[in-house]
Amino acid sequence: VRPPILAIVGPGDGATTDDLRRAESLGELAAREGWVVLNGGVASGVMDAASRGARAAGGLVIGILPTADPGSASPHVTVPLITDMGQARNNIIVLSADAVAVCGMSPGTAVESALAIRHARPIVFVAAEGATRTFHERLAGNRPAYFVESPADAIEQLRRLFGQRA
Amino acid sequence: VRPPILAIVGPGDGATTDDLRRAESLGELAAREGWVVLNGGVASGVMDAASRGARAAGGLVIGILPTADPGSASPHVTVPLITDMGQARNNIIVLSADAVAVCGMSPGTAVESALAIRHARPIVFVAAEGATRTFHERLAGNRPAYFVESPADAIEQLRRLFGQRA
Amino acid sequence: VRPPILAIVGPGDGATTDDLRRAESLGELAAREGWVVLNGGVASGVMDAASRGARAAGGLVIGILPTADPGSASPHVTVPLITDMGQARNNIIVLSADAVAVCGMSPGTAVESALAIRHARPIVFVAAEGATRTFHERLAGNRPAYFVESPADAIEQLRRLFGQRA
Amino acid sequence: VRPPILAIVGPGDGATTDDLRRAESLGELAAREGWVVLNGGVASGVMDAASRGARAAGGLVIGILPTADPGSASPHVTVPLITDMGQARNNIIVLSADAVAVCGMSPGTAVESALAIRHARPIVFVAAEGATRTFHERLAGNRPAYFVESPADAIEQLRRLFGQRA
Repeated sequence: VRPPILAIVGPGDGATTDDLRRAESLGELAAREGWVVLNGGVASGVMDAASRGARAAGGLVIGILPTADPGSASPHVTVPLITDMGQARNNIIVLSADAVAVCGMSPGTAVESALAIRHARPIVFVAAEGATRTFHERLAGNRPAYFVESPADAIEQLRRLFGQRA
Repeated sequence: VRPPILAIVGPGDGATTDDLRRAESLGELAAREGWVVLNGGVASGVMDAASRGARAAGGLVIGILPTADPGSASPHVTVPLITDMGQARNNIIVLSADAVAVCGMSPGTAVESALAIRHARPIVFVAAEGATRTFHERLAGNRPAYFVESPADAIEQLRRLFGQRA
Repeated sequence: VRPPILAIVGPGDGATTDDLRRAESLGELAAREGWVVLNGGVASGVMDAASRGARAAGGLVIGILPTADPGSASPHVTVPLITDMGQARNNIIVLSADAVAVCGMSPGTAVESALAIRHARPIVFVAAEGATRTFHERLAGNRPAYFVESPADAIEQLRRLFGQRA
Repeated sequence: VRPPILAIVGPGDGATTDDLRRAESLGELAAREGWVVLNGGVASGVMDAASRGARAAGGLVIGILPTADPGSASPHVTVPLITDMGQARNNIIVLSADAVAVCGMSPGTAVESALAIRHARPIVFVAAEGATRTFHERLAGNRPAYFVESPADAIEQLRRLFGQRA
């Protein structure tokens, strides 16, 4: 039996303090539940925060780096993988995940949320509001998209989808 | 001097009659202006319509196919290129284009519009309304995103950006 | 009816004078036969020479660039496409080609010749000798691999495979 | 301090009994030395054998799958990652590895060995002979390529390069 994989995505540059706090908390809670945490691997923003949280809880963190530079990896990533394929690596993150959680919004994050909906991967938006929420609700249609208030609520939603112990 | 490249993107499945009409018209107008038309290459929806329009005007159409199947190409594509990399091929479409035009919306289209904004490629949305427009306006921030009513208006916008004869 | 596509591959750096002469000649002869010429697009070595030859004969040249830098394209490429996926772009070159011709050898070239054999694309080695020839003969087994002396012989082989006018 | 990553590559289909025996032994020895084992992830040939050996020794095995099908993963892979980019995924395997070991030869394997030399990743060929050895020796030139007789010798070579405990 393999551990399930949760992609935690969000802004690299331009993440808000709330985005970072939520991503770190979600990384920690997810690792405690037994999820492998997957993300874009870079030492900035939501990627870095989610990795830090997951590692603090003893979790396994896999980072899918966009460039050929191994030095770009967050120190909190357990296994950095080097793609050298820029934003095309977002498709690997989403396809490899059993579920995707979104903390914050940016152009790169929007690529990942659209890919998750495109591939019908269950996606949980944490604290998304306004046009971001409305747009993605309509984009998802009947595909599995959830909108929650907090990291704890995101974990609760994942439990409903994947069982008590992920 | 190379011809400029216009990516015309939109839904493959689920395109509306209006999406298809606009895509075909835009393909035709763009080819007349001297643009090479680039898209996802498949024989369905907006890709097929834009290719048909461009070829009817004598244009060059390059299709970046997602699968390894050459038979998936629209008959209106001049040169189909085979990526076998699924939705990751969207990044090639956007990076290779001097500008991106969007007719309609779907999860795959949202990947392409987010990539265009991520890479700061000028993007022209044709007849986008409501949350789709509001979300992308905010996502773009200071990056070049335009919202127009019709294919003719899209060409007018491209002329303002790239000159009278593209 | 679409024009057939010939990928002409070989060393970027470190090409010999003979490699460059053969690539330019092959590009010219192939374009005269009606082949679209496809390659890695960069302004160096065999890629640049094959593109120059094909354009001198009025051909269409498509270059699949490895980086995100449009300025890296050979001036002889008609349509440069930007992948930003490094050596992974070699798979697109080979999959998109109806046949592959090899002028010279280097690590990057060996990636492309192995991919061509992996995908059973007809491959024509021009002036390959010694271990390069022996290794690829064995690697190909029953898959279509041809070893010829000159660009003219390569065209002759392509005619046998694809008909008089390619 | 991150664990080093060893890519173990070789034929999926058509592996010999010796290839499989060497791959399983190498996977086991490498895991005991503390290497993370990385490969193409599929449930066949050298990929499957190396994964089985590494898991038997309690190692972490990451598989970079070529298709979008999670069911294609070897049961011995700890974390399967889904690329949906076919043979282009070989570039990720090689770039992500600190060293590459080769057991057997096939067209797909030749792609990986050429990529390793292209990127100057240290590569250790186990029991390679004849034209395979001669070709890769010449292809490597001054880049780090080693030819050894057995899995134990490969580990000894890796120790010389990376230290006693990898």
